[in-house]
Amino acid sequence: MTQAPLVGLVMGSDSDWPVMRLAAEALTEFGIPFEADVVSAHRMPTEMIEYGQQAHARGLRVIIAGAGGAAHLPGMLASVTPLPVVGVPVPLAKLDGMDSLLSIVQMPAGVPVATVSIGGARNAGLLAVRMLASGTDELAKSLQVKLLAFADSLRESAYAKGA
Amino acid sequence: MTQAPLVGLVMGSDSDWPVMRLAAEALTEFGIPFEADVVSAHRMPTEMIEYGQQAHARGLRVIIAGAGGAAHLPGMLASVTPLPVVGVPVPLAKLDGMDSLLSIVQMPAGVPVATVSIGGARNAGLLAVRMLASGTDELAKSLQVKLLAFADSLRESAYAKGA
Amino acid sequence: MTQAPLVGLVMGSDSDWPVMRLAAEALTEFGIPFEADVVSAHRMPTEMIEYGQQAHARGLRVIIAGAGGAAHLPGMLASVTPLPVVGVPVPLAKLDGMDSLLSIVQMPAGVPVATVSIGGARNAGLLAVRMLASGTDELAKSLQVKLLAFADSLRESAYAKGA
Amino acid sequence: MTQAPLVGLVMGSDSDWPVMRLAAEALTEFGIPFEADVVSAHRMPTEMIEYGQQAHARGLRVIIAGAGGAAHLPGMLASVTPLPVVGVPVPLAKLDGMDSLLSIVQMPAGVPVATVSIGGARNAGLLAVRMLASGTDELAKSLQVKLLAFADSLRESAYAKGA
Amino acid sequence: MTQAPLVGLVMGSDSDWPVMRLAAEALTEFGIPFEADVVSAHRMPTEMIEYGQQAHARGLRVIIAGAGGAAHLPGMLASVTPLPVVGVPVPLAKLDGMDSLLSIVQMPAGVPVATVSIGGARNAGLLAVRMLASGTDELAKSLQVKLLAFADSLRESAYAKGA
Amino acid sequence: MTQAPLVGLVMGSDSDWPVMRLAAEALTEFGIPFEADVVSAHRMPTEMIEYGQQAHARGLRVIIAGAGGAAHLPGMLASVTPLPVVGVPVPLAKLDGMDSLLSIVQMPAGVPVATVSIGGARNAGLLAVRMLASGTDELAKSLQVKLLAFADSLRESAYAKGA
Amino acid sequence: MTQAPLVGLVMGSDSDWPVMRLAAEALTEFGIPFEADVVSAHRMPTEMIEYGQQAHARGLRVIIAGAGGAAHLPGMLASVTPLPVVGVPVPLAKLDGMDSLLSIVQMPAGVPVATVSIGGARNAGLLAVRMLASGTDELAKSLQVKLLAFADSLRESAYAKGA
Amino acid sequence: MTQAPLVGLVMGSDSDWPVMRLAAEALTEFGIPFEADVVSAHRMPTEMIEYGQQAHARGLRVIIAGAGGAAHLPGMLASVTPLPVVGVPVPLAKLDGMDSLLSIVQMPAGVPVATVSIGGARNAGLLAVRMLASGTDELAKSLQVKLLAFADSLRESAYAKGA
Repeated sequence: MTQAPLVGLVMGSDSDWPVMRLAAEALTEFGIPFEADVVSAHRMPTEMIEYGQQAHARGLRVIIAGAGGAAHLPGMLASVTPLPVVGVPVPLAKLDGMDSLLSIVQMPAGVPVATVSIGGARNAGLLAVRMLASGTDELAKSLQVKLLAFADSLRESAYAKGA
Repeated sequence: MTQAPLVGLVMGSDSDWPVMRLAAEALTEFGIPFEADVVSAHRMPTEMIEYGQQAHARGLRVIIAGAGGAAHLPGMLASVTPLPVVGVPVPLAKLDGMDSLLSIVQMPAGVPVATVSIGGARNAGLLAVRMLASGTDELAKSLQVKLLAFADSLRESAYAKGA
Repeated sequence: MTQAPLVGLVMGSDSDWPVMRLAAEALTEFGIPFEADVVSAHRMPTEMIEYGQQAHARGLRVIIAGAGGAAHLPGMLASVTPLPVVGVPVPLAKLDGMDSLLSIVQMPAGVPVATVSIGGARNAGLLAVRMLASGTDELAKSLQVKLLAFADSLRESAYAKGA
Repeated sequence: MTQAPLVGLVMGSDSDWPVMRLAAEALTEFGIPFEADVVSAHRMPTEMIEYGQQAHARGLRVIIAGAGGAAHLPGMLASVTPLPVVGVPVPLAKLDGMDSLLSIVQMPAGVPVATVSIGGARNAGLLAVRMLASGTDELAKSLQVKLLAFADSLRESAYAKGA
Repeated sequence: MTQAPLVGLVMGSDSDWPVMRLAAEALTEFGIPFEADVVSAHRMPTEMIEYGQQAHARGLRVIIAGAGGAAHLPGMLASVTPLPVVGVPVPLAKLDGMDSLLSIVQMPAGVPVATVSIGGARNAGLLAVRMLASGTDELAKSLQVKLLAFADSLRESAYAKGA
Repeated sequence: MTQAPLVGLVMGSDSDWPVMRLAAEALTEFGIPFEADVVSAHRMPTEMIEYGQQAHARGLRVIIAGAGGAAHLPGMLASVTPLPVVGVPVPLAKLDGMDSLLSIVQMPAGVPVATVSIGGARNAGLLAVRMLASGTDELAKSLQVKLLAFADSLRESAYAKGA
Repeated sequence: MTQAPLVGLVMGSDSDWPVMRLAAEALTEFGIPFEADVVSAHRMPTEMIEYGQQAHARGLRVIIAGAGGAAHLPGMLASVTPLPVVGVPVPLAKLDGMDSLLSIVQMPAGVPVATVSIGGARNAGLLAVRMLASGTDELAKSLQVKLLAFADSLRESAYAKGA
Repeated sequence: MTQAPLVGLVMGSDSDWPVMRLAAEALTEFGIPFEADVVSAHRMPTEMIEYGQQAHARGLRVIIAGAGGAAHLPGMLASVTPLPVVGVPVPLAKLDGMDSLLSIVQMPAGVPVATVSIGGARNAGLLAVRMLASGTDELAKSLQVKLLAFADSLRESAYAKGA
């Protein structure tokens, strides 16, 4: 991808990729340049903090972070960046992702994380698209048109199944 | 407020206002023009759909929607707007808001809602600010500066308490 | 089916059919004409609203709606129809349907949904039969006789297993 | 009330009345004649069975049953009547009504209970009205008109609050 | 079994047998004569009530009842018998038996059910043995000796595994 | 109380007494001699083990044990006595007694605890009465008569409330 | 306190102090020098990381960290220190501390947090004492003696209540 | 293992070994001598009490205890030893280990258990290493160096995956 990435897609472990790749797919469908990386809050905390602190200066406009269990990555990134952070609760083998969800969504006042559903990485990608589409530049305009067309395609697909 | 609103702040019932006013306060702190209204998914569904469908054309750039129990407002608005929708789970007298949280966050693939914590309306406001700050215009630049200053003030306040 | 349908059986996605077909089977056993369709609250919201608004005028007397996760279909239909709406919580891969159940059953005062068990589509069909059987016309009389015979058959079947 | 009751409103204990009276109020608003009684599944099981067995022959068309904790009343009545039974999970001092909800809604295939929200007795009354309104007689026609007007009043009330 | 049964082992459905047979095995190990039967609270309510009402007069001294979901059998039997009733929460495909557990254990004051663990039918059998062993007759004495020996065997088995 | 106690009523802390005294009341109503004591699994483990080991030799026939949180008392006593042990989950300030319930009811195969509802000490007392009433001696006969009369009084009281 | 602190007692917010002071009390009872401070993972992330990285070099031997909701402080400190970290789930107004518990205890393999009960700060202090008492120096010896005496006092206090 | 064990690794049943062996592996990686045994709270309570009472005198410095369901082993050991006890909630077939977690973590004030994640035996081993590394002897110094190197290896491994 030759364009500078607008979205940083990070996860706590490469075992999260089967879930998180759905975010990458959504971004690709809308032509959003992004970068994907393993950035573990617990195993590489210093690099994680640096990643968050530098993200907006590097030109990223949205961060998508997925993690499971005591999932601290989205919230910790949100604490060191002014960018909107989308959190994806990755389910572990036990508890069906309820621990991941609560660890991500129950952030204290002051540091928000935009949380999507358990395993909902595709929606994380689409939410990033909506954020970029709510801007005021040419990219936003074209993305908003694409999002409206995307909603049409969802409707048509659902309608066809019901026919 | 004389400026055209950039954020639509809606809730299912005026009984949600004691929670949702914290979103309004956050927006006010950052100087974001917004509108606040009761738009009930269940009691005024047609108007709710219209609200969502027209929001982006009216110049809104983010919708914040709060609701409790079987909380359908954020998700239904997200299904008819290309804008990012921030959902606030408002807790009812029973279940501590767990029903509100699951009803908002567990959206199907295709229609994301950016969910914040139970009762976390202040963070909903701050998330909207982050979204506007991730744009490419002058407003975004000034908001990003403000957000970095805001993070500083959070740190100083916490630091002072620990001193 | 040549008779005008009395029951509208709708679901948010065709992936719900393996669960929802049990409602169809129950209706068929009692000879109730019905229609089945995909009507997604989130992917075809306008059509969904129209479906609900027109249902009673089209001669439907009961709506059965199944959905999973942030399951908004039953409640949204209930908000635009005077008909009784039976909600079926369809379980997703995670959370065992608890999110679906709470999203459907915890409706605010004013807009009821008659909720059955997680995955309980057969009971949704039987509940629709009971509603039609509680009427005052010939159909009701014959259905009430059939329901009493059905209860007998349940007892005999259970009794035989215990013998 | 001089008219023969169409709805039987029963509860496991008179301590359930503060919750269940909301069902009575809804029925009264729509002019539905009803009877209210304590019929405990656990303390008067024989009478409870008889109540259920005789309900339809006595002219009742819907049963509303509320109970808390290990709430067996709605399901046991449903097992001995062909009438639709609406179950109201009454919350106890602990568990926020989750035990009541699961004890009522998770009925086995064959014996449905139309479950409403925790403490949702008003919706139980409204659901009974919808069932009666889905009939084919004059009462049904007039109730359906009233229900449409009721939906209008909900919308207007919500709209007024938002104004 | 030529001896008159002392324990009545009943279940709501023959699909509960794979769980409930563990109670039968425990009773057999201790030489307790018992009867096993399907007695469904929801499909044969009248017979269920009769079963409970007659149990003590027929010479039964303990009832073990297993059921799943909205599990009403143990509590309903307890309401019509003076005998101790042991309840076994049988897990269904969803919710891991939490609905079964709450439906059985959360009985109102006045009507106790001796609840064992989810799927814990073996312990239900052993609990019945303990109840019979707490009597004042010869059977009790011999059972108490057996129970002490049983505890020894548990210890030895555990000890052997650790060696 | 001059008679030798038949029931040992123990609790982990004297703060459990406001809940556990309801068991004492029930035993008193039925004229069952009992002893009540604080026997903490965690603060006096050796005495607790001794209490359990000696209970049956001292003439106790049933143990009732209440505890909260990580409630180990009922299960530990059950592991050292052949007597039936009734466990009462005492709710703490948080979690509504769910931790107490699971810690008591989820015993491994081999060591049963007869668990009653959260805070259900009255039912624990009544369950002990039922156990004694299921014996073969004169006490059992008289208790069974009393239990049948007790059931009558419950019915009459419920009936009176409904009248 | 003139001695160099052995335990670092930190919390995410000064609102956690009413809970966390119980840890301070326990440490004081055993004469353990400690420091207490507000170190917020989300509001002062850089300082938090530094605190954790320097703790062992500064002579601290145990860290006790309390936080609520999406409680990231204990786990993040554990990721940057080789010291044992004791986590205290502080309950917020909603969810009874279940979110705090899961956010702290469900750490990924590699980075352990020694979690105590919801609101269990006193036990956090006692756990730190046990850790220091398990050493090989004179302090350890004296603390182990004190802990054995402490256990005696717990027993005597419980015994006295039961007398 | 020729060295005297410093860690006692015990579990309620040999069926816990597939989980608990991960603790053994972690201890082995750091060269900590340990002993592993089955010590069941419920099947060998007397031996369990003795194990706990003698542990510190035998030279053990940390106990790791795993158990499932109504998991009493860690807490009961903690009540009879001054050593730090690490509890591992072993998940059973149902409830995903939530019962195990609550039974272990929710200990009353006075008797702490250092609880790790559901199935988190590896972290239990690592926590024991951290405790030993927080001492003041040569072993502690060398373990602290190893722990810092271990953290480095975690970071490098995570970094490599992201590259």
